[in-house]
Amino acid sequence: MVIFTPSGKRGRFPVGTPVLTAARQLGVDLDSVCGGRGICSKCQVTPQFGEFPKHGVTVAAEALSEWNAVEARYDRIRGLKEGRRLGCQARIEGDVVIDVPPESQVHRQVVRKEADAREIVMDPATRLLLVEVQQPDMHEPRGDLERLAEALKVQWGVESVTAPLSVLARLQTALRKGEWQVTVALWKGDEGPAKVLDLWPGFHEGRIYGLAIDLGSTTIAAHLTDLRNGTVKASAGAMNPQIRFGEDLMSRVSYAMMNPGGDREMTKAVRAAIDGLAKSLAEQVGIGARDILEVVFVCNPVMHHLLLGIDPVELGQAPFALATSGAMGLEARDLSLSEINDAAQVYVLPCIAGHVGADAAAVALSERPDQSHDLVLTVDVGTNAEILLGNTSRVLACSSPTGPAFEGAQISSGQRAAPGAIERVEIDPATKEPRFKVIGCDLWSDDPAFVEAVKGTGVTGICGSGIIEVVAEMRLSGLLDAGGLIGSAEQTGTARAEAQGRTNSYLLWDGTAQGGPRISVTQGDIRAIQLAKSALYAGARLLMDEIGVDKVDRVTLAGAFGAHISPKHAMVLGMIPDVPLDHVRSAGNAAGTGARIALCSVAARREVEGLVSRITKVETAIEPRFQEHFVAANAIPHATDPFPNLLGQVTLPEVSFNTAGEGRRRRR
Amino acid sequence: MVIFTPSGKRGRFPVGTPVLTAARQLGVDLDSVCGGRGICSKCQVTPQFGEFPKHGVTVAAEALSEWNAVEARYDRIRGLKEGRRLGCQARIEGDVVIDVPPESQVHRQVVRKEADAREIVMDPATRLLLVEVQQPDMHEPRGDLERLAEALKVQWGVESVTAPLSVLARLQTALRKGEWQVTVALWKGDEGPAKVLDLWPGFHEGRIYGLAIDLGSTTIAAHLTDLRNGTVKASAGAMNPQIRFGEDLMSRVSYAMMNPGGDREMTKAVRAAIDGLAKSLAEQVGIGARDILEVVFVCNPVMHHLLLGIDPVELGQAPFALATSGAMGLEARDLSLSEINDAAQVYVLPCIAGHVGADAAAVALSERPDQSHDLVLTVDVGTNAEILLGNTSRVLACSSPTGPAFEGAQISSGQRAAPGAIERVEIDPATKEPRFKVIGCDLWSDDPAFVEAVKGTGVTGICGSGIIEVVAEMRLSGLLDAGGLIGSAEQTGTARAEAQGRTNSYLLWDGTAQGGPRISVTQGDIRAIQLAKSALYAGARLLMDEIGVDKVDRVTLAGAFGAHISPKHAMVLGMIPDVPLDHVRSAGNAAGTGARIALCSVAARREVEGLVSRITKVETAIEPRFQEHFVAANAIPHATDPFPNLLGQVTLPEVSFNTAGEGRRRRR
Repeated sequence: MVIFTPSGKRGRFPVGTPVLTAARQLGVDLDSVCGGRGICSKCQVTPQFGEFPKHGVTVAAEALSEWNAVEARYDRIRGLKEGRRLGCQARIEGDVVIDVPPESQVHRQVVRKEADAREIVMDPATRLLLVEVQQPDMHEPRGDLERLAEALKVQWGVESVTAPLSVLARLQTALRKGEWQVTVALWKGDEGPAKVLDLWPGFHEGRIYGLAIDLGSTTIAAHLTDLRNGTVKASAGAMNPQIRFGEDLMSRVSYAMMNPGGDREMTKAVRAAIDGLAKSLAEQVGIGARDILEVVFVCNPVMHHLLLGIDPVELGQAPFALATSGAMGLEARDLSLSEINDAAQVYVLPCIAGHVGADAAAVALSERPDQSHDLVLTVDVGTNAEILLGNTSRVLACSSPTGPAFEGAQISSGQRAAPGAIERVEIDPATKEPRFKVIGCDLWSDDPAFVEAVKGTGVTGICGSGIIEVVAEMRLSGLLDAGGLIGSAEQTGTARAEAQGRTNSYLLWDGTAQGGPRISVTQGDIRAIQLAKSALYAGARLLMDEIGVDKVDRVTLAGAFGAHISPKHAMVLGMIPDVPLDHVRSAGNAAGTGARIALCSVAARREVEGLVSRITKVETAIEPRFQEHFVAANAIPHATDPFPNLLGQVTLPEVSFNTAGEGRRRRR
Repeated sequence: MVIFTPSGKRGRFPVGTPVLTAARQLGVDLDSVCGGRGICSKCQVTPQFGEFPKHGVTVAAEALSEWNAVEARYDRIRGLKEGRRLGCQARIEGDVVIDVPPESQVHRQVVRKEADAREIVMDPATRLLLVEVQQPDMHEPRGDLERLAEALKVQWGVESVTAPLSVLARLQTALRKGEWQVTVALWKGDEGPAKVLDLWPGFHEGRIYGLAIDLGSTTIAAHLTDLRNGTVKASAGAMNPQIRFGEDLMSRVSYAMMNPGGDREMTKAVRAAIDGLAKSLAEQVGIGARDILEVVFVCNPVMHHLLLGIDPVELGQAPFALATSGAMGLEARDLSLSEINDAAQVYVLPCIAGHVGADAAAVALSERPDQSHDLVLTVDVGTNAEILLGNTSRVLACSSPTGPAFEGAQISSGQRAAPGAIERVEIDPATKEPRFKVIGCDLWSDDPAFVEAVKGTGVTGICGSGIIEVVAEMRLSGLLDAGGLIGSAEQTGTARAEAQGRTNSYLLWDGTAQGGPRISVTQGDIRAIQLAKSALYAGARLLMDEIGVDKVDRVTLAGAFGAHISPKHAMVLGMIPDVPLDHVRSAGNAAGTGARIALCSVAARREVEGLVSRITKVETAIEPRFQEHFVAANAIPHATDPFPNLLGQVTLPEVSFNTAGEGRRRRR
């Protein structure tokens, strides 16, 4: 009896059967690139000896054949870990328990950093396979490709195979140089034949890579990933060069509408930037960019269309029709990506709707709200907020036009998250004095060493998470009323409240002594944040209406920015519905994670395609209730919705600074 | 009862059923591009009235609904032939016999010129289809492509659809311009989804075209074909520009071996020439080259590899391994064909073996030896002769290295077939005086007006068919013995036999008076022809051995050159085995015909792929008997094989001019 762990699969085999053969027959996940030729060493196993009452066997020392010459040679040259055997060489001689270590599993689980996140099982579209090809013969007139296909069928069970001309042109040389052994990078097609993306004479020691790309309106993030085990070898980001055509999505759509050929300019620019990123990542890791064989893209619909070379004009007007919403399989050349392997395969995640893109689909793939028993609200905060609400019975999605305020734009002292930007803020409720931290410095601003410490960067402005904190802190400290008015110096008792025409502002930092700016929060800043957070909240509320609930169980903040938002402050602001604070978590860059999952797993691609087709799309623009929710959400945190969990944690001063006509009081 | 002719299909339908609907339900081949919207007029039918005892029905005048407004409008604008109705408008009211005229059938038969050739049934990969696409809607977030796919499924039964990015980029505009009607050129894939190759807003009046290309070592012939009905709209030929790298195949293989990158130079040159041909054909017919949506290639293995961008070096040495032997589906861009539609699909016929290419496969598709009850020998004469032998039970193929003598090369006065070249020859057996015709002039050379008539071109040399005729005529008139020796003036009694060192030559024409050349047939010319014809005959004999026969029933001469060979002269020479002269026919450019068939019919592509896989390949280079056959075939017509059919028609003088040692006599 042969028992494999951890799978528990078991079976009986004739004496002398190689462990690899037994594993294959039982469907045990045991890796092999060379197909059992003792070359690749991917099939290492750890035999277990002694008594195994659980399995009902006793394993004798001679349960496996003795070390053979191949194993001895491998150990001498590369070293075989203590207790390890090569599965293709060790033969079964008696009852034995064989442990397959994680690194010998093809479909190993890649455990994510966050404890609560789901595990990913490797199932890459492209694998390296060593094959031994029959030599040509006058009596056997089939071509080299046909004999390679035959070998792949017999040796690896691959039904049918094609090769692009670029690979075909190198096939004959590779076969002869490798003396009829060749390692192929084989991509398994969706429906059609498998495709040879690259090949090398003999056994190829190298690795193959993929790029997971999160193509955002502002930045492009790329993760160079080892396709064998899912490891991210390097990550890099670049500004989206389309910014020179328009800061936000709609201004880019306008650019395409106003300038004939403008869409093509933007397409060209973004593709060149992606090509450059691929090249620099390959250089960083010290590999050839030709070893990049797959690329997965996630992006919002406008980026999606501009990447694919489709004029996004229809996305700028109702009914926001996508040219295509389905997942796409492309080739590198379709996107003019010339740095990576010219046979590289591209996968673009499906879009959910004209406003809810492949980036939201990637968040759904990463977070799988459809697998949650709790009702979970997932918010990807960016220029547009993508909102998912659901559980195992149903998932809904919408997009809400928050505008760029949460990213620091449209804020008087707003700036991108960069060294010198204020990112954390506290205001003393008694003194109304603030203290803050800037990116690039660990000290609070009330630390005597602070000014010296930030000399390099200065204090330059407020970034997205900073603006959320300062507005929330102003509300908590009584500087701001529920309606969103900043009190005057007289009303609040602090000289930091400064009159600006008919409104007031709050001075956070006066850097003029150091030659820096005065950083204030103006009444206009508050209004911008109110608009943004109302849109976000109203979107979430609309989805809750659709499901028929007035509270959710959990909130997940996604997006690079989401990772920096303080749940408490977000809730004081009324960005998100009231839940226990410890039920708010950050999923980090969930869209990027989704891209990585799709890169590492073909099954995950099918999953996200199925999931997207099941998601109910709610269009905020045409729902009358969106306007109602939006208006009600204008108050901080909210005009009508109770926030019991929040109020159990914080006290919201009942102040009102409305001096015009009847004073509006907080209603609760 | 509704009866369709000529199919004879019949069925009962509710009163009011449109004729097109009834035809579809019965599987009657009735065309429609617009899907029954009364736009395209492709579904015209001719109802038959009166008594039909054969069908057992009487058709009343009111068997169909009256003309409706759509038909009246169509008749007013375009004119409807007497007695015709639109199948989508005419509704069934009673028993009726409906004739479907050939032009309303999708799978109409395209009758070939030659009476004995098989008929081709249209089954093109690409069709035009009008579809009505659902408009986008805020509540229906699927993309335009997905809604187009849905429409194709519902309206045309197309299971799944993709579109290249170039088409996707034009989809949204076309749909809106066509008010949600669009005509698509839909290519049905082999296994995968159908592909939209092009599209037009609304109903597209235009046509779509394909190119059938016979890519030869010397010339490239292209036929621009209407993909709807198989009509050749224009044909054009161009020199293969690779000639500057080497006249014949092996010299091009050598060029690739000797010059790094030489194969790429040749690939670039031939692709550019094809692109140029496509452009000039489109201009000639007055269509846009963008309307060319398919290309089919046939070519020998070296041309095949150089077209595909594969170094042909392996084809220059045993075992003559092809990089790939299977049929190939490619895209225009794979071959850098930039003049035609950038989504155009390319099909390359399979190769039979390293020496027997896709051109031979095309001959097999055109001639279908596997469907012949007689044992038929098909010979495609060129620089290499491709030889097929077989019948319904078995087909064999080989290639024989005839060399270029049959094309006029390696002949002292040889030249390509061009005006001024001698192409027909007769020699008077009594006087030994010749007369001949040159290309471009209908007069025989003994006509008094001949010299004046050929003043423009002169008499410049002997082309391939001329050299065969003159050598055969020399044999028939006793100027040449069975061993291939030319007799002296003394032996033959004519001063035209001129001594040249130790051998003799025969003066065919002395043009020096007109400032032209003296044209003779030298002993060296005879030897070159002997080598060529021996190789051809030996190849045929080898295949006959393999089947175990010593005669064949019929001989088909293929190739552009084959069309000009006189069967009698070819048999006198012993190029082909002895059969009744009227059992020798020319199939014209059978390879080109095969290319056209594959262009017009997807089923034919599958047929040729199946046929090629069933053909037994015989390798002449490694068969010892090939040498034996070759030596025996050196005599004219043959040293040992009897030629009873030939000898029933002609008398071969029993002469012998061998004065050295023992005279060799013809043995029969």
